[in-house]
Amino acid sequence: MGIVVINFKTYAEATGQRAVELAKICEKVAKDTKMDVIVAVQNVDLFHVSSEVSIPVYAEHIDPVKYGAHTGKDLPEALVENGATGVLINHSEDRAELAEIEDDIKRAKGVGLQTIVCAPTAASSEAIAALSPDFIAVEPPELIGGDVSVSKAKPELISDTVKLVHRIDEKTPVLCGAGVKDHEDVRIAMNLGCKGILVASGVTKAKDPEKALLDLIKGMKKERKKRTGAA
Amino acid sequence: MGIVVINFKTYAEATGQRAVELAKICEKVAKDTKMDVIVAVQNVDLFHVSSEVSIPVYAEHIDPVKYGAHTGKDLPEALVENGATGVLINHSEDRAELAEIEDDIKRAKGVGLQTIVCAPTAASSEAIAALSPDFIAVEPPELIGGDVSVSKAKPELISDTVKLVHRIDEKTPVLCGAGVKDHEDVRIAMNLGCKGILVASGVTKAKDPEKALLDLIKGMKKERKKRTGAA
Amino acid sequence: MGIVVINFKTYAEATGQRAVELAKICEKVAKDTKMDVIVAVQNVDLFHVSSEVSIPVYAEHIDPVKYGAHTGKDLPEALVENGATGVLINHSEDRAELAEIEDDIKRAKGVGLQTIVCAPTAASSEAIAALSPDFIAVEPPELIGGDVSVSKAKPELISDTVKLVHRIDEKTPVLCGAGVKDHEDVRIAMNLGCKGILVASGVTKAKDPEKALLDLIKGMKKERKKRTGAA
Amino acid sequence: MGIVVINFKTYAEATGQRAVELAKICEKVAKDTKMDVIVAVQNVDLFHVSSEVSIPVYAEHIDPVKYGAHTGKDLPEALVENGATGVLINHSEDRAELAEIEDDIKRAKGVGLQTIVCAPTAASSEAIAALSPDFIAVEPPELIGGDVSVSKAKPELISDTVKLVHRIDEKTPVLCGAGVKDHEDVRIAMNLGCKGILVASGVTKAKDPEKALLDLIKGMKKERKKRTGAA
Repeated sequence: MGIVVINFKTYAEATGQRAVELAKICEKVAKDTKMDVIVAVQNVDLFHVSSEVSIPVYAEHIDPVKYGAHTGKDLPEALVENGATGVLINHSEDRAELAEIEDDIKRAKGVGLQTIVCAPTAASSEAIAALSPDFIAVEPPELIGGDVSVSKAKPELISDTVKLVHRIDEKTPVLCGAGVKDHEDVRIAMNLGCKGILVASGVTKAKDPEKALLDLIKGMKKERKKRTGAA
Repeated sequence: MGIVVINFKTYAEATGQRAVELAKICEKVAKDTKMDVIVAVQNVDLFHVSSEVSIPVYAEHIDPVKYGAHTGKDLPEALVENGATGVLINHSEDRAELAEIEDDIKRAKGVGLQTIVCAPTAASSEAIAALSPDFIAVEPPELIGGDVSVSKAKPELISDTVKLVHRIDEKTPVLCGAGVKDHEDVRIAMNLGCKGILVASGVTKAKDPEKALLDLIKGMKKERKKRTGAA
Repeated sequence: MGIVVINFKTYAEATGQRAVELAKICEKVAKDTKMDVIVAVQNVDLFHVSSEVSIPVYAEHIDPVKYGAHTGKDLPEALVENGATGVLINHSEDRAELAEIEDDIKRAKGVGLQTIVCAPTAASSEAIAALSPDFIAVEPPELIGGDVSVSKAKPELISDTVKLVHRIDEKTPVLCGAGVKDHEDVRIAMNLGCKGILVASGVTKAKDPEKALLDLIKGMKKERKKRTGAA
Repeated sequence: MGIVVINFKTYAEATGQRAVELAKICEKVAKDTKMDVIVAVQNVDLFHVSSEVSIPVYAEHIDPVKYGAHTGKDLPEALVENGATGVLINHSEDRAELAEIEDDIKRAKGVGLQTIVCAPTAASSEAIAALSPDFIAVEPPELIGGDVSVSKAKPELISDTVKLVHRIDEKTPVLCGAGVKDHEDVRIAMNLGCKGILVASGVTKAKDPEKALLDLIKGMKKERKKRTGAA
């Protein structure tokens, strides 16, 4: 239990060669802590990054096209060939049509890619659950990249999302994100029913990304311990 | 004089490992014939393909974003870091807003990427010329991927485009494409004022891509010879 | 029980003055048969049509913007002021982002507009149900405007949709559409759990729209009678 | 010489019944001053506004579709039937693909609608000139709705635009907009070669729209007088 997904976006600190280096730091932390750490990188960085690390590397976008005449699209099959093991869908910075989300998930499954579908609200998280993604990540857009975490600013959003998503399918894991910066933010999220977190600037733009990531994982382990201890 | 740009699109024969192999064939022909051959590949294939060949490799799409919080976009700087030397813009299968074309060209120039901007008509080619791209490629959408070449079906479109583009800037080279399949198609295009061609299925889906590419180049050399002879 | 929604689209027979005339025919049938008949018209036709008939007139599109600087959008408040009582959302010819569908529904409710949200599949119908629209209309895009009705070609799509939607909210009425042409198509749809139908060319392009609409309603009454008789 | 186009956008003061009232004020000023005043309104407001005034009423948006199955679009023919005499295209709040701008202009001309195509820069204004619209309106997006006018902040943008547009076609009139608030802003614009202005909040949100509009026209007349006097 407990995964950390780091969205590299188009941050200077997480592009090209620096994306490779950051992914290596994430890999080190994953090994040291025995936690599941996933990096999501610009599609164009997929091959380079995935060639250098063994942790899962996700694409930031999928185009649900098929082999044929489609200029400017990245084929799902090409994502896989270039090392992707999963993909982010419908991020608030990359919103997709409802019908496209459904196609994205089908195409991703067809080629063996895991899917993390983002949603801004509890109701749209429930909507997405009906489309059977592997993970749902709830993120209120107004908190993304900010100083206050969703865990502290909107804890009820997390618990509502978990409840509504599990009404559709109890097994669909919910992640949360937006403003998540330290172990306490993570501990609260896990306590409210999340199975992991989706972070970006909290790690990519940290002075010391390794330390920042370790701190987030500390919150995850703390909550896990509590549960195990309680059991 | 005379460049051949091969758009790999999302053809099965031009994706992932097969994109690398096809690019190598193009590289071989470029060396053998001493012609400029450019391949445009899915963004996600850029790193792998550009690592294996020394001919220019273009991206099929550019996002005019800057470093920061942009999920699902490929940063112009990331295209360059992953080996791109140029980019296709506004292909009829990847139409862009006018204001975005202007931004695309500026951002591409800023990072040192060559730009080939596509247009469906002579008037829109002239419009694009006002934005100072490196190349303009005119392609009537209804002929793309078909059996009849623009050279034979619409020769006046080519000559009109060359005339209108040169009214804005005499030095902007015009390419043409759509249905271009053999040396005669190419010879006509060059004769009408084109500086090169943009092809896709004519090479990528050919039984023998090397032979197909050599045949196109034959038309180019034929026209060049005529001009040199005439001079 | 039983509503008929007629989508005027941009059909020549249902634009401008002819939209007014067609709406009057629909109004006559509504009165004669005492059924709920709704017409959805081009936004630009709303004022004229709604000034001339007393049946509900829906907009074909809503922009979830607020008062302010938004050129080229139709404000929800403006739809209401011009006579709309409801709106079609996410038609397969006018697909919307998931987050926009959520905003559309909220804005529509805020100004008192009824919402019919369209979906191509049973799963996406369930997804939409989570967003609490007034109606869900399931329409497989490949059958829209064709000769075979969804009722006959895909009866299981209708029953699956009804089942999945009611898993979320038992009270959300499901409509169906695509290829619906006669009373038997309608009778089957109602029998499978629909509360009404969404039609377009079946009425707008009929030689005799009044007769076509009466025939559809016949199927609706037939099924109703059966149920009442059975009760 | 000298036209004033007032873009009503989705301002509260320029929607529905209030759009009608504001249009009447514009009509009064047009008559009193014998100037060409055009109002551009939300498409859904076209019929109502155009029924009540005799000055030209433009749509804020055009969809270049044809009669047929297009839900959620406003047909060019329907704009005309509902009283539009022209249309705004490619406003910075409603950006269009280059190929669509070309289609928009063709479709508008086909049904007899005047076209005002907006552009953010001198180069893109030149680009648009190649597509032969009736008017080009240059507006730097960062000044729209602000306190400083384009005339004062970027006079060279206006003169460059006029020069580049006239390089393509000497007869295409250039309008300018963004932050235009008083007669001096207008006088400068006209002096730099504009044939009119495109305003929005400067009139729609003015305490006294009639007075605001009269003031703008004062600047126009002043410049005209100077020219006539000089002749």
